[in-house]
Amino acid sequence: YKIEWELKKSILINAVVSLLGFVLTLALIPVASKYVLRRNLFGYDINKKGTPQGSVKVPESLGIVVGIVFLVSAILFQFANIPADSNWLVEYNAALASICFMILLGFVDDVLDIPWRVKLLLPSVAALPLLMAYAGHTTIIIPKPLVQYFGENIDLGWIYKLYMGLLAVFCTNAINIHAGINGLEVGQTVVIACAILAHNIMQIGGSKDPEYQQAHAFSIYLVQPLIATSLALFSFNWNPSSVFVGDTFTYFAGMTMAVVGILGHFSETLLIFFTPQVLNFLASLPQLAGIIYCPRHRLPRFDPQSGLLTGTKDGTLVNIFLRLFGRRSERSLCILLLVFQGICCCFCFYLRYILTGWYK
Amino acid sequence: YKIEWELKKSILINAVVSLLGFVLTLALIPVASKYVLRRNLFGYDINKKGTPQGSVKVPESLGIVVGIVFLVSAILFQFANIPADSNWLVEYNAALASICFMILLGFVDDVLDIPWRVKLLLPSVAALPLLMAYAGHTTIIIPKPLVQYFGENIDLGWIYKLYMGLLAVFCTNAINIHAGINGLEVGQTVVIACAILAHNIMQIGGSKDPEYQQAHAFSIYLVQPLIATSLALFSFNWNPSSVFVGDTFTYFAGMTMAVVGILGHFSETLLIFFTPQVLNFLASLPQLAGIIYCPRHRLPRFDPQSGLLTGTKDGTLVNIFLRLFGRRSERSLCILLLVFQGICCCFCFYLRYILTGWYK
Ligand SMILES: [Mg+2]
Ligand SMILES: [Mg+2]
Repeated sequence: YKIEWELKKSILINAVVSLLGFVLTLALIPVASKYVLRRNLFGYDINKKGTPQGSVKVPESLGIVVGIVFLVSAILFQFANIPADSNWLVEYNAALASICFMILLGFVDDVLDIPWRVKLLLPSVAALPLLMAYAGHTTIIIPKPLVQYFGENIDLGWIYKLYMGLLAVFCTNAINIHAGINGLEVGQTVVIACAILAHNIMQIGGSKDPEYQQAHAFSIYLVQPLIATSLALFSFNWNPSSVFVGDTFTYFAGMTMAVVGILGHFSETLLIFFTPQVLNFLASLPQLAGIIYCPRHRLPRFDPQSGLLTGTKDGTLVNIFLRLFGRRSERSLCILLLVFQGICCCFCFYLRYILTGWYK
Repeated sequence: YKIEWELKKSILINAVVSLLGFVLTLALIPVASKYVLRRNLFGYDINKKGTPQGSVKVPESLGIVVGIVFLVSAILFQFANIPADSNWLVEYNAALASICFMILLGFVDDVLDIPWRVKLLLPSVAALPLLMAYAGHTTIIIPKPLVQYFGENIDLGWIYKLYMGLLAVFCTNAINIHAGINGLEVGQTVVIACAILAHNIMQIGGSKDPEYQQAHAFSIYLVQPLIATSLALFSFNWNPSSVFVGDTFTYFAGMTMAVVGILGHFSETLLIFFTPQVLNFLASLPQLAGIIYCPRHRLPRFDPQSGLLTGTKDGTLVNIFLRLFGRRSERSLCILLLVFQGICCCFCFYLRYILTGWYK
């Protein structure tokens, strides 16, 4: 049981580092807000247009604080706790490089508004170090009823790596387009990241294979600082937002969760946690592909008199929820969407529980 | 000789990738200039104040283009050419993470002007993944006359790692403060990087130890894209500058050269290549430490009538050269300083040649 104790110690140290990251982020966001406002990096809250709050300059792209504090936490934890001869060092460094590259791209996008073609291309490049370093399986396990046709498992090789690359691109963009109301970007990140953490802890508890435990521990090392720093941002971004998170945050959060899923070897599970984002992506597809006209913002209509939002015909989950459940305030809509995210995550756990018999 | 041929092939592929990086940078800088101007990221050329050129808005921090193209080149080369089970992957990924983090910090500094305390602290954090991954010696070889006192070599352990960390912080800041006239930041980078490349090639040619050759090849893989992308920027930044490079470039270039020196295991040689930067740092020390008053810019005085620069009392190499060699135009001053940089590099090669007998 010595290894298990070592593992618990590492996770605990990581939790402490994350806590410090939480405090640091909390302290830095008001400071950084002044800096970004000085540079005219601000936005108006479109969903409050017509009310006094709609004319306040809200500081934009505060995700940069979260990103930098996350990187510093992750690096300090690596320095303090991962032995220099660890096999995990190559994957950990690849993870840092990929995440850092995405933060850089996000911030450059926030400042300079890069064209969307570049936005699709560069995340794929950012994911490459990760795929290079990926040392896990490239096989899929075949469900028991089909074993007689395909054998126990199929090695997909580079196709599996391609799938993981696409997953990384999908995750970064999926969070970016499931957005637009106060608190949603950070809220969904926190809910998914907590589900990932719960999944990791259950898997470590349920397994005796140290290699398997290590993969999930690795995932915990990155997801704990993500939860901590995001929560600090959440307290500022919750309705009414005193800061906006920017593409910096959505790219960073999406890539970090993709990294965690890929290097923790549970990318399929991750995709189920992302159900609302997948639905939103599917609903957006006609407009993204240019079949239907796509306006600059695809936000609901805000009524300054009642303070309520009405769904429009634009294909986003936000609008679909408003059409399904009726007009409501921005805050209650955000809560509704986050609850839905939580339900999807719980459903994923249930699904895994059901399917266990079909696989191993 | 099979390994040697493999090595030559890799270096050649890297040269081709670098060439593509050169072309891409050349094409992207004019495009990116429009983007940064739109965001009011520009500066006035202080050394041309009083002439029509002094009132032109020059786009600032184009180093971001160089940085991103460098990262993309380095990642694509890694993907194409480094085997996934290579021992070098961990160091390569650490290098990418450290360099990317510095580009991010440089760009954030250009956009938001972060306080100088943070500027000293964060590069040390950025260097940590590198030191973690460093797998080379931590010993210094004792010169023959002293062997009887100290033995053949001393293992300095963590002190050597601390020295490397300080080297990284020094390199990033040294290039940043040896600046202020058109073309100097990029010019010195190109000269030093070429010296590094020459040093690497000579060492590979002169050695039979494959491990040693690999270390220098690794260094080439990163220094070739650096030269290529910097040269593209140089063509825009040469007097009269149509773009400025920003802290993004100086941080990126400094960190990349530090990385290359540390992971190529020739950090002592690198420090001699940096002689002008060391002199500039020593001359700046009284002002940086706050003993003497330090103005916002420590530039020479420009005379709009004659178009010549005169040295001031501020302790920088630029001013010392002007006082030593008399008033001159910005362009000829830059050439003079770059020639001095070249002489220092040649002197370093001569010194190594002389000292060989003392060591091995
Ligand atoms: Mg944007
Ligand atoms: Mg600055």
